[in-house]
Amino acid sequence: MQRTLGTCYYPEHWPEDIWQQDAARMVAAGLTWVRIGEFSWSRIEPTPGDLQWDWLDRAIDTLVSAGLKVVLGTPTATPPRWMVDRHPDMFALDQDGKPRGFGSRRHYCFSHQGYRKEARRIVTLMAERYGPGDRIAAWQTDNEYGCHDTTVSYSDAARAAFVRWLETRYGGDMGALNAAWGNVFWSMDYNRFEQIGLPNLTVTEPNPAHVQAFRRFSSDQVVSFNRDQVEILRAHSDAPIAHNYMGRVTDFDHYKVGEDLEIASWDSYPLGFLEDRVGASPEKQRRYARQGDPDFQAFHHDLYRAVGRGRWWVMEQQPGPVNWAPYNPAPLPGMVRFWTWEAFAHGAEAVCYFRWRQAPFAQEQLHAGILRPDSAEAPAIVEARQVAEELANAGDVTPSQAPVALIFDYDAEWAWQVQPHGHGLTYFDLVLEHYRALRRAGLSVDIVAPTQSDFSGYALILAPGLMHLTDNLRQALAKAEGQVLYGPRTGARDADFKIPTSPLPPALDGLEVVVAAVESIRPDMPLPLANADGAVTGYLETVETAADVLVETAAGQPVAVAAANQVYCAGWLDGDGLDHLVATLCARAGLGICKMPEGVRRRQTATEEFWFNHLAEPVDTEVGTLPPAGVFRRLRKN
Amino acid sequence: MQRTLGTCYYPEHWPEDIWQQDAARMVAAGLTWVRIGEFSWSRIEPTPGDLQWDWLDRAIDTLVSAGLKVVLGTPTATPPRWMVDRHPDMFALDQDGKPRGFGSRRHYCFSHQGYRKEARRIVTLMAERYGPGDRIAAWQTDNEYGCHDTTVSYSDAARAAFVRWLETRYGGDMGALNAAWGNVFWSMDYNRFEQIGLPNLTVTEPNPAHVQAFRRFSSDQVVSFNRDQVEILRAHSDAPIAHNYMGRVTDFDHYKVGEDLEIASWDSYPLGFLEDRVGASPEKQRRYARQGDPDFQAFHHDLYRAVGRGRWWVMEQQPGPVNWAPYNPAPLPGMVRFWTWEAFAHGAEAVCYFRWRQAPFAQEQLHAGILRPDSAEAPAIVEARQVAEELANAGDVTPSQAPVALIFDYDAEWAWQVQPHGHGLTYFDLVLEHYRALRRAGLSVDIVAPTQSDFSGYALILAPGLMHLTDNLRQALAKAEGQVLYGPRTGARDADFKIPTSPLPPALDGLEVVVAAVESIRPDMPLPLANADGAVTGYLETVETAADVLVETAAGQPVAVAAANQVYCAGWLDGDGLDHLVATLCARAGLGICKMPEGVRRRQTATEEFWFNHLAEPVDTEVGTLPPAGVFRRLRKN
Amino acid sequence: MQRTLGTCYYPEHWPEDIWQQDAARMVAAGLTWVRIGEFSWSRIEPTPGDLQWDWLDRAIDTLVSAGLKVVLGTPTATPPRWMVDRHPDMFALDQDGKPRGFGSRRHYCFSHQGYRKEARRIVTLMAERYGPGDRIAAWQTDNEYGCHDTTVSYSDAARAAFVRWLETRYGGDMGALNAAWGNVFWSMDYNRFEQIGLPNLTVTEPNPAHVQAFRRFSSDQVVSFNRDQVEILRAHSDAPIAHNYMGRVTDFDHYKVGEDLEIASWDSYPLGFLEDRVGASPEKQRRYARQGDPDFQAFHHDLYRAVGRGRWWVMEQQPGPVNWAPYNPAPLPGMVRFWTWEAFAHGAEAVCYFRWRQAPFAQEQLHAGILRPDSAEAPAIVEARQVAEELANAGDVTPSQAPVALIFDYDAEWAWQVQPHGHGLTYFDLVLEHYRALRRAGLSVDIVAPTQSDFSGYALILAPGLMHLTDNLRQALAKAEGQVLYGPRTGARDADFKIPTSPLPPALDGLEVVVAAVESIRPDMPLPLANADGAVTGYLETVETAADVLVETAAGQPVAVAAANQVYCAGWLDGDGLDHLVATLCARAGLGICKMPEGVRRRQTATEEFWFNHLAEPVDTEVGTLPPAGVFRRLRKN
Repeated sequence: MQRTLGTCYYPEHWPEDIWQQDAARMVAAGLTWVRIGEFSWSRIEPTPGDLQWDWLDRAIDTLVSAGLKVVLGTPTATPPRWMVDRHPDMFALDQDGKPRGFGSRRHYCFSHQGYRKEARRIVTLMAERYGPGDRIAAWQTDNEYGCHDTTVSYSDAARAAFVRWLETRYGGDMGALNAAWGNVFWSMDYNRFEQIGLPNLTVTEPNPAHVQAFRRFSSDQVVSFNRDQVEILRAHSDAPIAHNYMGRVTDFDHYKVGEDLEIASWDSYPLGFLEDRVGASPEKQRRYARQGDPDFQAFHHDLYRAVGRGRWWVMEQQPGPVNWAPYNPAPLPGMVRFWTWEAFAHGAEAVCYFRWRQAPFAQEQLHAGILRPDSAEAPAIVEARQVAEELANAGDVTPSQAPVALIFDYDAEWAWQVQPHGHGLTYFDLVLEHYRALRRAGLSVDIVAPTQSDFSGYALILAPGLMHLTDNLRQALAKAEGQVLYGPRTGARDADFKIPTSPLPPALDGLEVVVAAVESIRPDMPLPLANADGAVTGYLETVETAADVLVETAAGQPVAVAAANQVYCAGWLDGDGLDHLVATLCARAGLGICKMPEGVRRRQTATEEFWFNHLAEPVDTEVGTLPPAGVFRRLRKN
Repeated sequence: MQRTLGTCYYPEHWPEDIWQQDAARMVAAGLTWVRIGEFSWSRIEPTPGDLQWDWLDRAIDTLVSAGLKVVLGTPTATPPRWMVDRHPDMFALDQDGKPRGFGSRRHYCFSHQGYRKEARRIVTLMAERYGPGDRIAAWQTDNEYGCHDTTVSYSDAARAAFVRWLETRYGGDMGALNAAWGNVFWSMDYNRFEQIGLPNLTVTEPNPAHVQAFRRFSSDQVVSFNRDQVEILRAHSDAPIAHNYMGRVTDFDHYKVGEDLEIASWDSYPLGFLEDRVGASPEKQRRYARQGDPDFQAFHHDLYRAVGRGRWWVMEQQPGPVNWAPYNPAPLPGMVRFWTWEAFAHGAEAVCYFRWRQAPFAQEQLHAGILRPDSAEAPAIVEARQVAEELANAGDVTPSQAPVALIFDYDAEWAWQVQPHGHGLTYFDLVLEHYRALRRAGLSVDIVAPTQSDFSGYALILAPGLMHLTDNLRQALAKAEGQVLYGPRTGARDADFKIPTSPLPPALDGLEVVVAAVESIRPDMPLPLANADGAVTGYLETVETAADVLVETAAGQPVAVAAANQVYCAGWLDGDGLDHLVATLCARAGLGICKMPEGVRRRQTATEEFWFNHLAEPVDTEVGTLPPAGVFRRLRKN
Repeated sequence: MQRTLGTCYYPEHWPEDIWQQDAARMVAAGLTWVRIGEFSWSRIEPTPGDLQWDWLDRAIDTLVSAGLKVVLGTPTATPPRWMVDRHPDMFALDQDGKPRGFGSRRHYCFSHQGYRKEARRIVTLMAERYGPGDRIAAWQTDNEYGCHDTTVSYSDAARAAFVRWLETRYGGDMGALNAAWGNVFWSMDYNRFEQIGLPNLTVTEPNPAHVQAFRRFSSDQVVSFNRDQVEILRAHSDAPIAHNYMGRVTDFDHYKVGEDLEIASWDSYPLGFLEDRVGASPEKQRRYARQGDPDFQAFHHDLYRAVGRGRWWVMEQQPGPVNWAPYNPAPLPGMVRFWTWEAFAHGAEAVCYFRWRQAPFAQEQLHAGILRPDSAEAPAIVEARQVAEELANAGDVTPSQAPVALIFDYDAEWAWQVQPHGHGLTYFDLVLEHYRALRRAGLSVDIVAPTQSDFSGYALILAPGLMHLTDNLRQALAKAEGQVLYGPRTGARDADFKIPTSPLPPALDGLEVVVAAVESIRPDMPLPLANADGAVTGYLETVETAADVLVETAAGQPVAVAAANQVYCAGWLDGDGLDHLVATLCARAGLGICKMPEGVRRRQTATEEFWFNHLAEPVDTEVGTLPPAGVFRRLRKN
């Protein structure tokens, strides 16, 4: 596989007379890809039915003629203003019932059938025009599904669709739903499916079974919205289809959307994420302010490698300060190159910089490009050029499996959100903390979907926090030969969010663990471990088991217990505790670890090894002193 | 009086074939009472008019046959889904005007006449069926009035009822209301009562007289809703009637509701309260995380002894982790017994554990029971059994009066909420802080209603913060022979929330104090006292008086002044300041104090003395070393 | 010019039989002015069309007869309840679309044509009755425009007016607006002006060009509302017209309103402001809790001197604790006198105390007056009397120009609010920080409008943060002979909120600076300066320039650069950094500085010099030891 670069371009934003020069400069900078079109509906169809393809034809021709490969986006994330006159109720409603109206983007409800039809119409027109032939090298559907919390909608359209979805799920059996949800609890029984509302605007918390069902439904609506487009594009084009997911957007199941696509891609804004959604301490935010979190991007790289079943891109790469975080600093010199190589180290096919030239207008006018608004070079283009030159000497690469698998399950993410038990406990953080510990041990990781049925080749498989464990996954894990880590909360809920009537969790294969009680604990009351650094924080189960105790609290309460290769962890461990647990598991698995200095991370594939220094100071490592923003790469001896 | 135990049970949640076994296990555990039915409307009347009493008949029979006494709850806190089709506007509206809809509980507006009629209908049916005979040993009306902030509703129904309430209060005289409220202030005069709206959605704060009237009205609606049920039950049954109030729910006047009932009861969740509503510092939250606040429960015990005019229960006692606080730790071993004995020390007739078996479904699936979801014993049942055994040897008790009276007035609570003057100042906290100081001095306390007319036998009477002082109470306090503590803010408002035209407060009997000015102060700017530990924090009045100065600030400003047995405190004292004031008052009253070690509390009745150690460590006391969760009890020499 | 005192009086709040005594006490206290009437509509017109002027006639006669000068307010800030029946949609809507209804004050939308007509009607009636003759010495329009966030309304009326405003601004050319706003960005193009909505309830942030236009429109609505009244009053009266602006209310352009008036006035509540809107640290809030911020009032004094083109008053002066801040302490003894003299030092014609007697009812019942509710003297009247005596000996004063001009531009305030880039960065704070630094250097300052065309006589002109620099101002500054300080963000946006296509900022006259990049920085990551105390915090531009570097970071990045008398500052400097910059500029300007001790401030006019000690302790200065609340005044040698 070849590794390539690209950029995101908006010909409709610029005078046509500079398109050709822009294209030539892209090629000169070593870029291969140019993504266009995804916000251009109002220029393609300025008034209903008045299709204006000419400008887009010329833009594509200009880019292709210059030697660039075009990724064409469907424009459905930004329906024009006239669409709202046709479908005044097309908006999502927020939790308070307020419409999320026109004036920015993503102003549609995934369940609105009128808009669904419009979306199919414009995608069909676009596919018919650009599908045949080879002008388009790849497609992108819509843009950043779920961004700005747009997956979940409390509209009438959503309610109607939810009722149908439930009827299907429960085979039209009202009693089955009432029983499955335990609606007897507070006299919440329904007489007819049509009575079921959305789980907002209740007096106190709604039934968690109700909420979880609504979260699953909402995710399915995204999947089906995307599938509409894929089916149309496939009918007219052989080019691969991608979607660009957004970092830490977890409201829909990316694996399921990904199953319909050839390529997964995501939009990587390390500095914006650190300020806005990593959840780091202020001290850490200061230390990494110009470099980004040392694990957050890598985690997404590994996630989208799974979502894309090996084929994945960074569709948008931060090139300088962004506009949308609370604070928007400039990256440390070298970080644009660094982030690009980090993506390649994790198997990216392509990295595209967002955006070519900074827009002088509208919402993102303070979002840097790789050119300045005045067309002068911004720092990023220099680093992009450097990567292009380095890539020319780096050769092709072959995908390879990591020694460690870490399961990430969107359904579990929703379940923890619906019922965190303790304030601030999230599944995403739990999995990310495990990922950080693996990385601090120098390990390379495959993130895998909960639908994985074969864990061959993995020495270590981590499955933390799977509140509902499907039978398929249970069986697959039972067959695994590596060390398997479960818990906390594994199998704590059945498919309908009930506690299984047998003790918790239902016995795992070969590992009898009964969760007798669960408690959440103030985060400022850590429970120290015995004979190791670290502590349980925030959450702990009382387990009854005859298995071996691997980790226990200083007070003698079992935390991690094991039988054969099956390990159950009953609590939420802090960083030191997880380092200890990972070391213990690796020892059992016969997997060597390489403790990373603060800020340094390693990524190994079958053929290459990379070291990255995320600190703003030089760090000594076993491969030498890494400068700030330092990237070290070597081929691996086979 | 005998002291008994019980539990809360939901036969409708469980297969009928285990009811008998459950009943037998309850009896075996030493339980006397079983409360049922309060959330079962959708099973009693699955569709309108289709009454299904059979299952409830059988459940009651099973329980009674096993030897248990049944408390039957009216199911009006959870109207079924079909009710909403009949009365689509039955919901309360929140302050923003949003309906608080179906999907959890308490989804009704106390002023909605349609729902009021439905509530009377179902209670009548229930009373007719179960009132005659002796199957039912006690009744409970509804469940936790006011929980989830459900007393105050901004619905059209509430507005209409409020207008009528005002017409009555002001004798239909529009000018009287305008004058009483000072509506001239910002041209807020009304021409007709129908113009009066609810005090929400105003540009800036509404007239406090308007808000206070609305708060009083809202409370009265709860009283009348409850009275509807009481009148029906009384017509068919001789069993005593209770309601289960919730901790720190102060939006309606519990005394007034209590006047219509035989028994007051409350729902005691010490760990949930500490995290959620005590308002403790993080340090204190850590120290008492598994034991609960050392005064909060006792305060409610003493409050409900007043509300029940001597007869009171804990209807729901926390048995393990709850599900609803930010953090939900497990109690320290021994605390379930401890809490039970604490309630008995304060005069409870019965303590019922909530709930029998943890529900595996719906909103409270993470709320512990005294059985686990799999029917195994949870820790609480073991401690309950221990209490049952201890009770068997403890004998009967007789109620007795405490040496100290502390007035708690719901009207004052609302007044301070309407006009705290300084951010965070609440009447509840003010009274609780006085209560804490009394308890730190080892004193036993009676909380009394502001309608108390006779204070005979009290050596000390504390009446802090009574913003409106009724003539009756003023006269009763003037006649009291003990030391009487007033202030701050005593009588600062007339019955219509006006400042009396005479100086503030109107002269108390024998104690001329003029409040020349009031100020609120940043809480981080304490004003130290002269010649004592402690400080004024948050609030201070400038008083002009010829009375003796008992306490003053280091800067020489009078804080507490006295003439004869009347004492006025002009400021909000911190803990040390209140300890000093209490010691001063006790010295004047000839009342001995016994300084309690941190975390230890004492409760004395005419016949018994109890010591409780709320700390997680042993504490040395004059009655010996109390272990963690330690309860010491001895009979008093007479 | 004579300096006079006054008070705010509400005859309608009090029995008529005490009016005469009140008036006599006012005169005896040395007061000249009495402002009345501004909230009295419900008593002037109790029901529609029923005009009740008699009481007001008598009140005015009583006051005038006692020798007082009457300021009569139009009552449009408080339309009576019956108005709402006539115009149910007259309310402003908040950002969530909720009406801001009846029950307090300012419950009208500036764009509602029906209410606009009613306002003109009542003002016409009032002007016809009281305009002729000399009973009224001055007028006040409405009351505190914009207070309680009432400038911006999201009502239908506002939307309709906004559409018309935009049509006018863009000459009815839809394409021009689309191009100017860059609506192509996210397919936000409009087909017709009627499609344009208000910039609320969008999915993510709206187009900043859209928001800024709406902010300008909203300001213009206030200007035209006020102009309606002025035109009517002028037609019937020769008395000067004022409006009383509120501190740190910046949602409309006070200069533009001021252009239609003879006198600017503002309402000065130093302690309320410190708690509520200065944004001080807790430490500073404690230190100045009873004195107020040492620069905030002076800043407004200087601002309103500009708004009033030399003629300005304090219409409402805090006399004791207010009721509306989070904490409401009493002023340090002497502060009422201090605040009064401070206003005079900055050129006030009159200072009026709000209010005469504390109201015993309604929203402000805890707002002190200069009398207590029981008519006894509150501390403020004693200090007012002292000032009156001091004034008698102080002689007349002549306005004079300060050596330093500081531009304050409402348009820039909105622009920064629309696009702060970094969390918490506001233009108001930026200008205030510059003002503080000037004051710490002992300098007297003129605040000037951005419409200023002549800067003759200023040794130093500060123009920080002008995001849009008009051609007029650019030219005026280029002609200035003093040192001119620009930046950061000067000229960063064109008139339509676009980044100019040339580099940023467009070259200033004689100073070539290119802003290559901008970044916002966490406030806890200061960038220290080289060779000076202080740091850049929060915001920094990367500039390319051949000009001299006056200030740079320790890392070598230019911060302030200069060519001839033009200086550009590329970052947000902290206090020490601004002191350094001001010292540097003064040295270049040949302007002497006099470093003030903490809490001490100096104000010089052509004829007088004042020193003020804002601390609660005595401070040694070059004019001697100033006691707490100390005011030092001397005549200047010419």
